[in-house]
Parts: sequence; C-alpha cells; structure tokens
Amino acid sequence: MKIIRFGALGKEKPGVLLDNGEKIDVSAFVTDYDEDFFGNEGIEKLGNWLKKNKSNCPEISKKERLGSPLARPSKLVCVGLNYAKHAKEAGMQIPNEPVLFFKSTTAICGPYDDVIMPKNSEKTDWEVELAIVIGKKASYVDLENAEDYIAGYVLHNDISERAFQIEKEGQWCKGKGCDTFAPLGPFIATKDEIKNPNNLELWLEVNGERLQHSSTSDFIFNVQEVVSYISQFMTLLPGDVISTGTPFGVGLGFNPPKYLKPNDVMELSIEGLGISRQYVRAYK
Amino acid sequence: MKIIRFGALGKEKPGVLLDNGEKIDVSAFVTDYDEDFFGNEGIEKLGNWLKKNKSNCPEISKKERLGSPLARPSKLVCVGLNYAKHAKEAGMQIPNEPVLFFKSTTAICGPYDDVIMPKNSEKTDWEVELAIVIGKKASYVDLENAEDYIAGYVLHNDISERAFQIEKEGQWCKGKGCDTFAPLGPFIATKDEIKNPNNLELWLEVNGERLQHSSTSDFIFNVQEVVSYISQFMTLLPGDVISTGTPFGVGLGFNPPKYLKPNDVMELSIEGLGISRQYVRAYK
Repeated sequence: MKIIRFGALGKEKPGVLLDNGEKIDVSAFVTDYDEDFFGNEGIEKLGNWLKKNKSNCPEISKKERLGSPLARPSKLVCVGLNYAKHAKEAGMQIPNEPVLFFKSTTAICGPYDDVIMPKNSEKTDWEVELAIVIGKKASYVDLENAEDYIAGYVLHNDISERAFQIEKEGQWCKGKGCDTFAPLGPFIATKDEIKNPNNLELWLEVNGERLQHSSTSDFIFNVQEVVSYISQFMTLLPGDVISTGTPFGVGLGFNPPKYLKPNDVMELSIEGLGISRQYVRAYK
Repeated sequence: MKIIRFGALGKEKPGVLLDNGEKIDVSAFVTDYDEDFFGNEGIEKLGNWLKKNKSNCPEISKKERLGSPLARPSKLVCVGLNYAKHAKEAGMQIPNEPVLFFKSTTAICGPYDDVIMPKNSEKTDWEVELAIVIGKKASYVDLENAEDYIAGYVLHNDISERAFQIEKEGQWCKGKGCDTFAPLGPFIATKDEIKNPNNLELWLEVNGERLQHSSTSDFIFNVQEVVSYISQFMTLLPGDVISTGTPFGVGLGFNPPKYLKPNDVMELSIEGLGISRQYVRAYK
C-alpha cells in the first residue's frame, strides 16, 4: 500500500495512492497518519477497511497539494556518511559505527513544495536519501528483529546548508533543520512493497543533470543495522523517521563546490518510492 | 503562575501550583499544556479563568506523581558550553556563537522520576540548566523582540552519557537523548514570575554534596540572545523547549571524572523554579 497526505500545509488529510494511479481520501477511516495510527496496526487495519470501502472513498483532485505522507513525528534521526564514496567527497573518514544527527521536525514539508534557502545562505545542498518509518516502539532492538519495527519507506531530500552545518560552531543541526529542509514523499510504501530496502537504485538531478546515482546496496550500515543501533541510544516511537544517509554526488563534493540557486529544480527518486521535485526559492 | 502536570507517565493532566503550596486540577479548562495551549494565549486565558473558577478546581493529592510540566514539544534544543568555566572543564574553547544540539523529546520525564542509566553506560553525568519554554512561533526573531516569544522557564537536568556523547563517532545526540535523560520541572514559572532570567542562582547536589553552584549571570549568551539566535536556523513552535547550558561542576570536569552510580540521588534547583530530585537506577 502507498499512503499519502493531501491538502494545505498543516491541514493535511490521509489518503491512499492506488496501483492504477488514482488517489483516494481515506479520512472516513483515520484522521491522520500519526503515532497512534502506526502504533496500533493502522496500516493493516486500513488495508482491511479498504477491501470493503475503497469504492466509497472520494477521489482526490489532481490539483490538490501533496503533503508529507505522515504527521509530525517525535523525531527525524539521520545517519551521516553511510555510503563510503560520499564520506570521501565530504572529506570525512568512513565511520566504524553509524554517525547520528537530528533534523528539526519543523523542516518537514511535502514532496513538491518549494525549498526555501534560509537568510544568508550561500551553500544550500541536496541529498537524496532512503528514509525508514518506524512501526512500533523500539528500544534495544536486536539486529535479527529490527525489520519487525519498520512500517515502511519514504523518499527524503536531506537539504543541508553546508556553511551553517560545518563552518559554524558546534554540531550539525544549524544546517540541517531549516524550514523546508526535509521534503518527504510522495508516499510511504508499506514494507511489503519493498522486497529488499538494501538494494534500491536512487538518483537526484538538478536542472535535469543527474548528480547522484547509486544503490542502497552501497550502504555502510544497512536499514536493519541502523534501526537496531539507534534503538540502543533512544526509544523510537511509531511514526518516527530515520533517514539513512546519502550517496556520492552532493554539491559539497564538487571541485569547486556547486550549491543551489533560486529557481533551480531538484528531481529525485528511489526505486519503488516514486519521484519528488522541489523548486528552490530565496527567503522573502 | 506555576503550571504543572500530574498523573501516570503518558497520561498526565494539567494543574496549577498555587502560592499557598496547594496543587489544583485545571483539566476542566484545558486538556493539556501543548502547542495549541501555548500558541493560543493559553496562559493568559487560564489565569483569567482561574479568577472565577479556582475554588471549584479539585485539589491534587500529594501522592500523585508530577510529570513534565508540558506535553511533548516538537523539539528540545540545547545550548552547549554556555558558561565559560564549564567550557574549560569540558576541555572545550569558549564559543564565539552558541553551540546547538538536540535532545530526543523521548528523553523527557518528570522532576522526581528515576533517571535510568542506559545499558553499557559507565559515564552518566548531571547538568543543571535553565530551560526556556517558547510561547509563540518564532522565526528570524530580532534580539530586542526575543522576550516576547518566551512563555516561561523550567528547571532541567540535562543528563548526559559522556562516552556515548564524546567517545563514539559523530555528533553528541547518542549521549543526550536516552530515555529519562531530561527531567523537567517541577513546574513552569510563567515569565511574569521571573524578573531577570539572566541573574538566577542555580545549584545541583549529588548525594547531598553541592557540585554545581553558579548564576545565570555567568551566561556567555543570555536567554534573549539564545532565542533570537536559534530562530535564525529553524522555526521554534509554541511549547518548544530551549535548554541554556550548564555551569561548572559536572562529573566530566573532575580529575579523575566522577560519574553517577545506581542509587545516587541528584537534587537541583534554580531560583524561582523549585527543586527537583532524581534517583539513579540501572537499566533492568
């Protein structure tokens, strides 16, 4: 199943993207895709409900904005430097254990929303990433059970302001959590749809030029390892999002570096998770 | 006004601590102290409502657990190294601009809850801190207006596992966001109660020994500067929490370092914000 949210920012309603491309409104069944939904077998229950009720669900107009396909999670945890070739382009060593950081959940936006360059930004960069959606409360999860805690997968563009991230004092969060820096979607594919999350092609283009193109088979730490590892340090709640790192080809890695400019367009995709597209705008 | 939450973990109800020490249940007026409450002049409305309805509010039993005095915020942003003498004991330079990091909001617990040392922890440490509660949506806030965005203040113990924080790869979040690592409370003092947040005595004792004792007048960056600064990088939402850093006297700073052991008790306080107390327990 592919779940979506549609409507104005902050007022999104839940929907489902059908295999025929039609989008239907399922707000008669559930008010939102949030911690309660993911933590109470919402995906399974929604699937069962649809068997009887699909034909009664209103179709969503093609004009409707798509939002992030889940409500604001308690956290958006990211893995840094999780592809060897990207660690090298960033001038970092290959880590011995996952590098973790947080993005503000206020950075989350829809898959086709504009990405706003923050005030004084000169180094706004792109990062196509596979993100995991947590399906049940996860604390000290063993590697062999990690997959049980996953609800599904979603495409994420981990937008990063490199000067804010790296050149300012302290931790990375200044350059990772700006508003609109986490476009999610177009949809969450429930995990039954993704045969092997550790072998998915992914790519990102800026103004039609393909700059990132790799496979999650190049992960240093795969999705099961990442879920298990993070759960040793904090409790993951249903609906929390883990973004698994980006492959080679970000702007920082070019010589000289290439950064986003107003009116640039990014298009990105992961096998089985659709395509998203964001225009870049200056802050006004 | 001093606002509190009481009841079992995850099922807390809103209350108010009166000047006579009595605690009253105000769940007839508001369901929780959350983003909606702080963002819609909830404090002012609650104050007005109490003028007429205080005598009808049920008294809260002294046996009731106190929870964190606010619902789970969208973020818990922390300032690192914000007292010069603490930066020195941590072996760090005095920063030129605020160092920021996030704690998981799943770390938040009540002021008298046990602090659980995570599995494999050997370096769990204390940090008394003044935390700010945001009262309205804050983005690119000027320094001179920063105080308008503050709802109140709360006592925070920024528990930190130093090996997880510093000795593991990457960012600090591994050692900052473990469950129970953010006891908040006993209450939020609304900002009218705190004449000058940049001149408050604060202290922390472990097993009765006073190990931290300072004043927020030693801040490198004061509360107005911190609110304005953070709002340049991310939008702060009503009910979000900013913790302003800890003074000299943490376990890491001793030679040799002193860390917490099971059955230790921490007691901590900030002028005008009450006293909290946490026993340390091993993870079972």
